[in-house]
Amino acid sequence: MSKSRLEAFSDGVMAVIITIMVLEMKVPHGVEAAALAPLVPVFLTYVLSFVFVGIYWNNHHHMFQAVHHVRGATLWANLHLLFWLSLVPLVTGWMGTNHLASLPTAVYGIVLLGAGCAYYILTRVLLAGHGQDSPLARAIGRDAKGKVSIVIYAVAIALAFVHPLVSCALYVIVAGTWLYPDPRFERIFSGK
Amino acid sequence: MSKSRLEAFSDGVMAVIITIMVLEMKVPHGVEAAALAPLVPVFLTYVLSFVFVGIYWNNHHHMFQAVHHVRGATLWANLHLLFWLSLVPLVTGWMGTNHLASLPTAVYGIVLLGAGCAYYILTRVLLAGHGQDSPLARAIGRDAKGKVSIVIYAVAIALAFVHPLVSCALYVIVAGTWLYPDPRFERIFSGK
Amino acid sequence: MSKSRLEAFSDGVMAVIITIMVLEMKVPHGVEAAALAPLVPVFLTYVLSFVFVGIYWNNHHHMFQAVHHVRGATLWANLHLLFWLSLVPLVTGWMGTNHLASLPTAVYGIVLLGAGCAYYILTRVLLAGHGQDSPLARAIGRDAKGKVSIVIYAVAIALAFVHPLVSCALYVIVAGTWLYPDPRFERIFSGK
Amino acid sequence: MSKSRLEAFSDGVMAVIITIMVLEMKVPHGVEAAALAPLVPVFLTYVLSFVFVGIYWNNHHHMFQAVHHVRGATLWANLHLLFWLSLVPLVTGWMGTNHLASLPTAVYGIVLLGAGCAYYILTRVLLAGHGQDSPLARAIGRDAKGKVSIVIYAVAIALAFVHPLVSCALYVIVAGTWLYPDPRFERIFSGK
Repeated sequence: MSKSRLEAFSDGVMAVIITIMVLEMKVPHGVEAAALAPLVPVFLTYVLSFVFVGIYWNNHHHMFQAVHHVRGATLWANLHLLFWLSLVPLVTGWMGTNHLASLPTAVYGIVLLGAGCAYYILTRVLLAGHGQDSPLARAIGRDAKGKVSIVIYAVAIALAFVHPLVSCALYVIVAGTWLYPDPRFERIFSGK
Repeated sequence: MSKSRLEAFSDGVMAVIITIMVLEMKVPHGVEAAALAPLVPVFLTYVLSFVFVGIYWNNHHHMFQAVHHVRGATLWANLHLLFWLSLVPLVTGWMGTNHLASLPTAVYGIVLLGAGCAYYILTRVLLAGHGQDSPLARAIGRDAKGKVSIVIYAVAIALAFVHPLVSCALYVIVAGTWLYPDPRFERIFSGK
Repeated sequence: MSKSRLEAFSDGVMAVIITIMVLEMKVPHGVEAAALAPLVPVFLTYVLSFVFVGIYWNNHHHMFQAVHHVRGATLWANLHLLFWLSLVPLVTGWMGTNHLASLPTAVYGIVLLGAGCAYYILTRVLLAGHGQDSPLARAIGRDAKGKVSIVIYAVAIALAFVHPLVSCALYVIVAGTWLYPDPRFERIFSGK
Repeated sequence: MSKSRLEAFSDGVMAVIITIMVLEMKVPHGVEAAALAPLVPVFLTYVLSFVFVGIYWNNHHHMFQAVHHVRGATLWANLHLLFWLSLVPLVTGWMGTNHLASLPTAVYGIVLLGAGCAYYILTRVLLAGHGQDSPLARAIGRDAKGKVSIVIYAVAIALAFVHPLVSCALYVIVAGTWLYPDPRFERIFSGK
């Protein structure tokens, strides 16, 4: 089964997600600088979510270059990932407009955790269909960064009820570690 | 006539449908757990609709792999299917915010019924353009699951005015039977 | 210059247009049949606009199959067409919620007229880049249907201030004549 | 690394951006000509933004035809450009509904400036991965128009606090100079 339509559909969904998030930032009513002030936390949350969706698109892009074929289970594992990502605009708007209140910050983390787990499941489903010596298997390796990210999300969710600002800092840190495309895949492909 | 642009357009429309549904879930106003309570039925309806659109995308993807060429009538049969799917976000929002009231539950079923019939028509139009011995014809076979789904939708619509909860359970059951990609197509392609 | 990215971008824009139109139909507030009544004209307008955008996508698809190459001017002629189509959701919502009042009905016609003229310009730009004997030139021919449609739109706009219902009937009639893909292109390709 | 998925994702994001801008123009409440009056500046701003996004799509399309391969840094430079473009619908709505007030006009310029700088960075990242004699390097050349545009945006932002109308005229002038696809790339490809 060809992977091209799965890539095209994923590109479409992620393109819509990353773009409609901006609709959560309502056009300011006033024309004074003060009218922009309430938008600042919304804007910063928007930037964070844009980076997260960008990271998922980048990693998805990199990983699927090493994918040789997809099965029925791959389609659903991929839709499961897109499901969690589709919730990002909603929780971005909620966290952004509530100045890092505990519950929205925790729910934001739950969506990141869900997406992280869904991505991990997707890698497992793909690995099950490729050999131990496939370029995909060598590229994914032990996937330590993916596993550590999931643990940090879980910690951040719990911390949100004590220090939501720390949770938010953890989200930023995780995003920072993923900003560069995975060198494992770069290495594989440059070695070709 | 090439099928690639029909696939690309369908991917685009389904990607937008599955993503803008989230806009029907309004950002909660409060930051207490109580603020999330009214979102619960909306969220569950969102999950159900996400799964339904995902099923259509999966089946569309599988079926078009066996499609060899498309005609003018195929384009309209496909647009007819996309029309019914485009109504899903609207009825999802209506059913979700009204706690399974009779009319919204029935209208939700009407949209599912319309999409089911449109998909059936699409398979007939495609079969008319392919031979009796084509991979497509063998893959579609008697299409018992498609026909039974349509009957169940009709029953659920009628039941919505008596027991809307039963209707909703029927929608969930139909979705469950379709969750796995059609083994008929998997068999055809793995046999290659 | 390759036509594939122009097709992909056009598919994307038309997919978003045809899908976000549904956002103009607001989720009804009540759960009685009466709550659906005000949606009926909005829904009928939605169906009409869906068919119009579908026609443009179909014709675009058919025409570009005969296109061999695109130039810089083609990109802008195509964007000009997408510009008018992008206004369809706005005027659909306005005409639908105002029960065929004169001004919204006329403005709806102006957008159809703009799209019709833009499509005509696009065919001229494409023809200028292909020979008189190209498959494209033979397929487009005298383009009588395109020219008549533009005249009917102009008549309907004027009539909207006297009998908006007649204008609307004219829009439906034009859509009806375009519903089937252009036999000229079918003939060309089946002859291959 | 293949450039096709980067192109597909960029097409998707720009298609959504150019289309959801129309959602910022709210359906008018009345049916009199007076109901359209407040939409006029919003509409003109919409046209300007549509042209700007169209210019970026056109230039992106032209430039990537000369691109041979992409790296991890290219993906992020491209996402950076898409980030600034994703803010266009928001600032379009703000400037349009406030009749060229100083602050919205300046913020509109800041987004154009950001997109201009992001495009410049993208060209530098691409050039770093291609040789001095590559078709891409010859096509981009000194990129005088790109640099002058950035300077004009900066001037327009400052002027917005004195004469916002002049700033707006500068935006229109810059758009005008970019309306035609870059002859440098046309020359390269027609020379093939």
